[in-house]
Amino acid sequence: MSDWQAALARKAELRDRAGLRRELRPRPAAEPMVDLAGNDYLGLSRHPQVIAAASAALDAYGLGATGSRLVRGTTELHTELEQELAAWFGAADALVYSSGYLANLGVVRALVTPQTVLIADEHVHASLIDGCRLAGARTVTYRHADPDHLASLLGEHKKAVVLTESVFSVDGDLAPLRDLHNVAREQHALLLIDDAHGLGVVEDSTAGLAGADDVVITATLSKALGGAGGVVAGPSALVRHLIDTGRTFIFDTALPPAVAAGVRVAARLAITSPELRVELRSRSLYAHRRLADAGFRVRPAAASSDPASAPSARVSGPAGGIVSVEAPSAELAATWAAECRRTGVAVGCFRPPSTPDHVSRLRLTINVGVPRAAFEQALEKVVEAAP
Amino acid sequence: MSDWQAALARKAELRDRAGLRRELRPRPAAEPMVDLAGNDYLGLSRHPQVIAAASAALDAYGLGATGSRLVRGTTELHTELEQELAAWFGAADALVYSSGYLANLGVVRALVTPQTVLIADEHVHASLIDGCRLAGARTVTYRHADPDHLASLLGEHKKAVVLTESVFSVDGDLAPLRDLHNVAREQHALLLIDDAHGLGVVEDSTAGLAGADDVVITATLSKALGGAGGVVAGPSALVRHLIDTGRTFIFDTALPPAVAAGVRVAARLAITSPELRVELRSRSLYAHRRLADAGFRVRPAAASSDPASAPSARVSGPAGGIVSVEAPSAELAATWAAECRRTGVAVGCFRPPSTPDHVSRLRLTINVGVPRAAFEQALEKVVEAAP
Ligand SMILES: Cc1ncc(COP(=O)(O)O)c(C=O)c1O
Ligand SMILES: Cc1ncc(COP(=O)(O)O)c(C=O)c1O
Repeated sequence: MSDWQAALARKAELRDRAGLRRELRPRPAAEPMVDLAGNDYLGLSRHPQVIAAASAALDAYGLGATGSRLVRGTTELHTELEQELAAWFGAADALVYSSGYLANLGVVRALVTPQTVLIADEHVHASLIDGCRLAGARTVTYRHADPDHLASLLGEHKKAVVLTESVFSVDGDLAPLRDLHNVAREQHALLLIDDAHGLGVVEDSTAGLAGADDVVITATLSKALGGAGGVVAGPSALVRHLIDTGRTFIFDTALPPAVAAGVRVAARLAITSPELRVELRSRSLYAHRRLADAGFRVRPAAASSDPASAPSARVSGPAGGIVSVEAPSAELAATWAAECRRTGVAVGCFRPPSTPDHVSRLRLTINVGVPRAAFEQALEKVVEAAP
Repeated sequence: MSDWQAALARKAELRDRAGLRRELRPRPAAEPMVDLAGNDYLGLSRHPQVIAAASAALDAYGLGATGSRLVRGTTELHTELEQELAAWFGAADALVYSSGYLANLGVVRALVTPQTVLIADEHVHASLIDGCRLAGARTVTYRHADPDHLASLLGEHKKAVVLTESVFSVDGDLAPLRDLHNVAREQHALLLIDDAHGLGVVEDSTAGLAGADDVVITATLSKALGGAGGVVAGPSALVRHLIDTGRTFIFDTALPPAVAAGVRVAARLAITSPELRVELRSRSLYAHRRLADAGFRVRPAAASSDPASAPSARVSGPAGGIVSVEAPSAELAATWAAECRRTGVAVGCFRPPSTPDHVSRLRLTINVGVPRAAFEQALEKVVEAAP
């Protein structure tokens, strides 16, 4: 083994000892697990209409887009999807990327000028952080979901772009979007909202801000919409700019047409099926309460807490489809998740560096495609499996 | 319109005047155009076996992967694809990403230590350049396909990673991989080869280097394999490192299972169908000769040129599926491409900043799925459409 490989192997051993090794676990088609880990919140990835639309597009267009968006990659399915997403968001225009990751990398760079300072919530997703790095602009973070801290930082900086998620991916808590927007607007800053875990999950997760002329929204098509891809929604001048100059747009093969077709149907189903969101919310609250009652530290935490009341009353509950439970250590988080798996329940296991606060946890995500009874049983297994 | 949008609109106007506006042209399913622009080199994106495999996976797994690779996104299809790609490359291990762009961003960062200098061919793809930026390491470029210049730069730097493509995406010329590897090896540098336009197109495009312990290969699954996605092939210690720490791997939704399934079949077809490569090569040479004979400046240029000989003898011809033709200006490149389109031929139009040398050109790519007669007719139309 050559030097560089030996150095990588040594690092792997250190991660091993710290309980930070990660394992790929290929799942078969015939799923033996109850899903409390994926992002298929509305169960649309397997919806017959979604599959039918994707199949038809596969036959009509072939597998890949065969080129970048500006060369051969744009099909009618892509532009129709973009129009429908823009309308759904209430934005002037929308642009579809092959992933949410590349959408975030692209948009941050587009919003930056030589004087810009990027001010990010300390919990924002890796793709936004990498977006800041790639943009090369000065970047500072504000305390998680704290508009006052943001205000104090904005006061120090002239041209700023504020970065947040709508529903945070690790703990499922909501950003105070209206307050953040007011604070940003006061200082003539732009607000970039990553709606990855809000779109389709939380009714109007972007709080009606999508049309505002100082707001830009991104999202992924891979979570509630059950597919893959990313989107930037905002003013037409921005979309124009991304088409002409955005490197992660121009130099990347387009989303496969079949995926665009499936996601389009999924978006329509998400819009016209509020009952899916009602069931999702009911399950999130149920999971949150059950886990809190079992004595675990559950997030999102209560907005206002009364320490004298019962644990179940102390939590306001999640607004989205994510509930997270603290684990005593990275290693015990892995043990806990493994025990869940052994009993047929897939849960997310988040350990550093995938957590913003170095606290390891299980992350449960709701999939309303799972039968309710199986969901409730799975939750009992999570409780029983605790280390 | 607010200030920032007005500023973007002003920039758009400047691009407009310089002939640098770009337009999305949605194509319908029933294709009225002959394809001389896409990257579906072997025509596999529409191969019945590819479509059948993707359809079956769509039914079995649903549309999206429903999560990142480490959470829910790894299916058996992903790991089988990885094993087969590793074997094809002759590498110890392989890791599939949702795009070649994200694969490149991820691998460059993984190869960098605090002392590393990145030394890139001046023509490398945007995703590699962004990979250098994101990695935060010192980056220098060497003259295009010039091992001597590389050697002189390597002499100045201790720990280096050399970045090149196998077949360059803009002009279709081959990198002198063995020479680059010898030079890199002498200075204990690693060699990263982006095989995006070589894989499946040029027999052994990575020159048997994939197994070497100082070589890492990336490629996209979106070109000759007709699908989408990216791959890193290399030593197991590197793949292990990417799984544990690679941000663009960990924090991105996995490639849709149907795409993985389709690409897997496409890879098998590419391996077992040398006749497709023979036809591809024949067409590339034909196009190259026809355009050179018509008096255009065609690339790839001759390795050794004799200015006294006829134009068709002066060019060595392309080894891959790309032929590029110089245009007098960005605007005339756009006019030329538009005229081709009008007569039913889709060609690539590359203008700054998509060209490494500020020269605008048409880029023709061969798709052996197009009937030969239609291909030859299309070529005549390209010649006639010249401004
Ligand atoms: C908040 C957030 N933003 C962006 C992304 C990236 O989206 P994609 O998976 O489509 O690349 C994710 C998750 O994957 C996410 O959770
Ligand atoms: C040389 C090269 N590398 C990487 C990429 C990126 O791959 P992908 O389109 O799969 O993101 C491309 C083209 O798109 C390319 O031409």
